[in-house]
Amino acid sequence: MRTAFYISDGTAITAEVFGQALLTLFPTKFEHVTIPFVETAEMAEQVKQRINDRYKTTGERPLIFQTFVDDNLRQIINHSNGVCYDFLHSFIEPVQRELGVAPVPKTHRTHSIHEQTYDFRIDAVNYALANDDGSNLKDYDQADIILIGVSRSGKTPTSLYLALQYGIKAANYPFVEEDMEQLRLPEVLKRNQDKLFGLTITPERLHHIREQRRANSRYASLRQCQLELNEVERLYQQEHIPFLNSTHLSIEEISAKIIAKTGLKRRKY
Amino acid sequence: MRTAFYISDGTAITAEVFGQALLTLFPTKFEHVTIPFVETAEMAEQVKQRINDRYKTTGERPLIFQTFVDDNLRQIINHSNGVCYDFLHSFIEPVQRELGVAPVPKTHRTHSIHEQTYDFRIDAVNYALANDDGSNLKDYDQADIILIGVSRSGKTPTSLYLALQYGIKAANYPFVEEDMEQLRLPEVLKRNQDKLFGLTITPERLHHIREQRRANSRYASLRQCQLELNEVERLYQQEHIPFLNSTHLSIEEISAKIIAKTGLKRRKY
Repeated sequence: MRTAFYISDGTAITAEVFGQALLTLFPTKFEHVTIPFVETAEMAEQVKQRINDRYKTTGERPLIFQTFVDDNLRQIINHSNGVCYDFLHSFIEPVQRELGVAPVPKTHRTHSIHEQTYDFRIDAVNYALANDDGSNLKDYDQADIILIGVSRSGKTPTSLYLALQYGIKAANYPFVEEDMEQLRLPEVLKRNQDKLFGLTITPERLHHIREQRRANSRYASLRQCQLELNEVERLYQQEHIPFLNSTHLSIEEISAKIIAKTGLKRRKY
Repeated sequence: MRTAFYISDGTAITAEVFGQALLTLFPTKFEHVTIPFVETAEMAEQVKQRINDRYKTTGERPLIFQTFVDDNLRQIINHSNGVCYDFLHSFIEPVQRELGVAPVPKTHRTHSIHEQTYDFRIDAVNYALANDDGSNLKDYDQADIILIGVSRSGKTPTSLYLALQYGIKAANYPFVEEDMEQLRLPEVLKRNQDKLFGLTITPERLHHIREQRRANSRYASLRQCQLELNEVERLYQQEHIPFLNSTHLSIEEISAKIIAKTGLKRRKY
């Protein structure tokens, strides 16, 4: 199998995202190897050796995705037997020309504690945890957004993702079986109605998810799922609450759509 | 101010990561605009118009980072007044040549629910939440890793990040003041000693973080922070538990270092 290496003097997250975006376009299977924090010439030489060894064993040149800022380290890897795709360096020159400004290379620019917005993100994670699943109703005035929906419609992972990636303070509030008879917005949500965003999902998918949690329960039954979803969707429409159906969406996609729909301000770019 | 657009027929996360990696090399300030899910020619034309309007208002050509899979949509944006940096298309041809295989373009390849590992990630998030902060000691046999450390040393956000990004089941267990007198590994950790990973932090930074939580408390005092950190570090060394100091590290960096140090298997690449 062909090997793809993701190498950097930082986390190598950028190298991974770039390499992944490219490789998933091809029907080829790869073995993936990430080597982060390659910060000295000695370490780079060891990585070069690993690449060369892999070439020797497999007879195929490994694909190398790298994001070194240090030019010396970059050159060491470029002299390996791998095929290097150096996307940063391919684009620095054109961007420099357009901006008319020279780059100021420094390591750990991205994905580091030194980004200005880092504390926002940690605060937002703590907020999301403290305000998960209706566990705390007092601090909704601090929320950037309040996700609402039935149990297992994707509220919690989405709240955490919004917090971790974007520093957005997301609370979430569940509608449960007991709420269903005459479903209304509780006072605490009514007061923050401009922050509400609803999630829904198909009854079949919800049934499937709930079955894994509590098999053969009333909670998981298709009938109950249908009933709850009918009710919340009626409520969303009645109260003009924006909402989306999470059935075929990942948390990344749900989050991106919520931000696009609401114009929510991200604290991290 | 110069505007940077991140545009895609998917989440635009890849476009953002790529653009960010490039732009942070330059000392220039940008206004960032992400436009995800541009899925029709009509929407692409609207985006093109937005780019052209921005050019007209500011007199500077916006920078465009795009990851369209649909060639038609891509071309529409390429004909705007922005400067397009099309990193996917710059590298497809060289990779195709190396692999000897044609690409099979399809949208929503990355960051979508269709990735095979998506369910692992949601399971891992649920696991991390259920096993946060020592709240559940019964399911440690299912953990891929158990983070240990004093309160506010970074365990919870790191556990969530490992789960969300990599599908790694991370539990975490706090050592609290009452444990300190004769700090030992409790039986439940002893049984899973090969899964333990310790976090530590400088007393000054811990003091600062705790002060924000409970100002002027014994819990937040520098003396108490020193005492607790001395004890846990002694324990890590005595029990040969791998550990790292999180003081100057982001959650992305802590996670990347933990994976690199332990060889932990990621469920998502």
